[in-house]
Amino acid sequence: MTTQNHIYFDHAGTTPMDERVLEAMLPYFTRLFGNASSVHTVGQEARYALDAARERVAKVLNCRNREVVFTSGGTESDNAAIRGAAYALEETGRHVITAAAEHHAVLHACQMLENRGWEVTYLPVDDYGQVDPQQVANAITSETALVSIMYANNEIGTINPIPEISAAVRERAQQLSRTIVMHTDAVQAAGFLDLDVRRLGVDMMSLSGHKFYGPKGERERRSGTENVAGIIGLAVALELADGHRGEVGAHCAVLRDRIVAEVQRLVPDAILNGHPTDRLPNNVNFSFDGVEGESILLGLDLQGIAASSGSACSSGSLEPSHVLLALGQTADTARGSLRVTLGKYNTDAEVDRLLSVLTDLIDNLRQLPTLTGTGDD
Amino acid sequence: MTTQNHIYFDHAGTTPMDERVLEAMLPYFTRLFGNASSVHTVGQEARYALDAARERVAKVLNCRNREVVFTSGGTESDNAAIRGAAYALEETGRHVITAAAEHHAVLHACQMLENRGWEVTYLPVDDYGQVDPQQVANAITSETALVSIMYANNEIGTINPIPEISAAVRERAQQLSRTIVMHTDAVQAAGFLDLDVRRLGVDMMSLSGHKFYGPKGERERRSGTENVAGIIGLAVALELADGHRGEVGAHCAVLRDRIVAEVQRLVPDAILNGHPTDRLPNNVNFSFDGVEGESILLGLDLQGIAASSGSACSSGSLEPSHVLLALGQTADTARGSLRVTLGKYNTDAEVDRLLSVLTDLIDNLRQLPTLTGTGDD
Ligand SMILES: Cc1ncc(COP(=O)(O)O)c(C=O)c1O
Ligand SMILES: Cc1ncc(COP(=O)(O)O)c(C=O)c1O
Repeated sequence: MTTQNHIYFDHAGTTPMDERVLEAMLPYFTRLFGNASSVHTVGQEARYALDAARERVAKVLNCRNREVVFTSGGTESDNAAIRGAAYALEETGRHVITAAAEHHAVLHACQMLENRGWEVTYLPVDDYGQVDPQQVANAITSETALVSIMYANNEIGTINPIPEISAAVRERAQQLSRTIVMHTDAVQAAGFLDLDVRRLGVDMMSLSGHKFYGPKGERERRSGTENVAGIIGLAVALELADGHRGEVGAHCAVLRDRIVAEVQRLVPDAILNGHPTDRLPNNVNFSFDGVEGESILLGLDLQGIAASSGSACSSGSLEPSHVLLALGQTADTARGSLRVTLGKYNTDAEVDRLLSVLTDLIDNLRQLPTLTGTGDD
Repeated sequence: MTTQNHIYFDHAGTTPMDERVLEAMLPYFTRLFGNASSVHTVGQEARYALDAARERVAKVLNCRNREVVFTSGGTESDNAAIRGAAYALEETGRHVITAAAEHHAVLHACQMLENRGWEVTYLPVDDYGQVDPQQVANAITSETALVSIMYANNEIGTINPIPEISAAVRERAQQLSRTIVMHTDAVQAAGFLDLDVRRLGVDMMSLSGHKFYGPKGERERRSGTENVAGIIGLAVALELADGHRGEVGAHCAVLRDRIVAEVQRLVPDAILNGHPTDRLPNNVNFSFDGVEGESILLGLDLQGIAASSGSACSSGSLEPSHVLLALGQTADTARGSLRVTLGKYNTDAEVDRLLSVLTDLIDNLRQLPTLTGTGDD
């Protein structure tokens, strides 16, 4: 299999599992395999393990144990949060506020509410992709039941000022004597940013284990048999991600800053998408005029480098990214984007290789139209 | 942890994962960790692996690849099948036929349809827990859209004549010129019975990986990131379960027959629940008059033996099993039931130990009321 030799720069898409996470999960596949609903000791040991995992997660997030709900990942978490809050508060008002650059999981959940007769405000973002707390406050009406604004953007890495947004929501809610639930999609923030829900001031937060070196598809359903190993893995991954975020963030930021500086030196008209400083330490996103993002990706892939263009969900389609369009880019420019997302195992040598392959590739791709004209095949 | 030393007789609740299943999954946690939605090679290798797993599952079930839908387990499969078929056929009629001894996952889904205005026929079962194909045929009306009858019962192991029931449904559907979808919950049948959907004549079938030495919580959602390792694990577990069902069934049947014979010899008034011959080779279910099932379970557990009473889902509550009530038992008798479900790793020596502990325990429990009366503590 070739992935062993691939250089992986798509950590916003998914991450390999940390060996320590796998180690923690293994006993629950075999020796401690009980069904947590069974009354006997084998089952109760699974139940204790689940309860302990829940407590470890709650500790990292600074919330109560029973506030932790295990789902199958980010999409289900976003859906459950938005639909759950809407269902609970529907009687008090049917208006939700979100933003144009949110992940599709959030946008689709809001569209579903729209189909049910809710009003949805899609706030614009600024040129860097940020949501303005004042605009959130201004959008709140006597019908608003829910605000959902992402913590960090999955494409461009831009970080939103969640504590300020939460404070603005709380203040308006108080003025209007209303309950307004504040949700944040923190799927990309985990492992890099503070996840303390009290400091953030949020009522609900979505996370996804496979984005921080944890397992994919972790899941505790209300009924049915719980995935004990997956939930243990999630808890361990979250502790590791949060515990080491200082050093991992610093490691990634050094690599990120080198890539940004070198690309800007070697391809002077490259456009850095997203905020110059309020961005995830592992995110690089450039647009290259006159080049298809898809062609860059395939060119890199042929050289053994995995990166991405737009979000993982929208790749495969050639639609320009809704995030880049929200920043005010033309569809053409948005189509020429490349996302490089770093991880804790990436090295300096891998970045050297990326830079050399990428700059050659951009040069070649920009000369292509002329070559096409020659009639050679 | 004590589970290492526990003797495990609750395979209908869940099974330990086969080491070969774990081996097959491991690379997908770490080396081959790609997101199957990514366009690069790392992602596409995950996609190929998913497609191959789907094909392996389809081959065992003798269905088309695209007919395989990965879910998080039996509960979600039952729900998706029943709700999906109901949604698709609602315009043609709103009547569903199921049976009184089905798993709660099926019964709850049918109750949900009832709340939406569907008519639900809950067919009775005979004294052994079997559904009569002729009764299914008789229950079909010009409104019937769906029939859901389980392949093998999770509590008493009784096997339903699915090919005959499917044929009866097809014949009536033809007479009435209607589409009637035939679903079977085969969660307990996997690893013991033929799973060829064409021979069974079913349109939909539910399975759950953790019941046949596969992973818990396997899941491929329509959107969101797929649990590649879990799906690979499911495919391998299904192949192993189906490929070795002759020998595993024979191994379990020998142990089962010994337990049944010895319990009947040592506790002559014990009532064997379920069919004497049309039953899963790994299922033993007895009722002991005047003894609480819960007390037997706790007594066994204290001696290091894990068994169950009623279904895993309903244990924890002291409600008598709806399955035993459906067989016509009184609530009191139904409360004194014990389920022993065998697995491929169980041994003769473990059965010896069970028999010796169990018969002493029943004796002691039956003397308890007298002891309680003495005022000793
Ligand atoms: C910001 C954001 N939200 C939600 C999701 C969905 O997460 P999952 O793939 O675990 O369903 C993603 C994944 O790409 C994401 O980046
Ligand atoms: C017959 C039957 N159907 C459905 C289920 C539910 O399966 P799961 O626990 O995987 O959700 C079970 C599990 O006990 C079962 O025995």
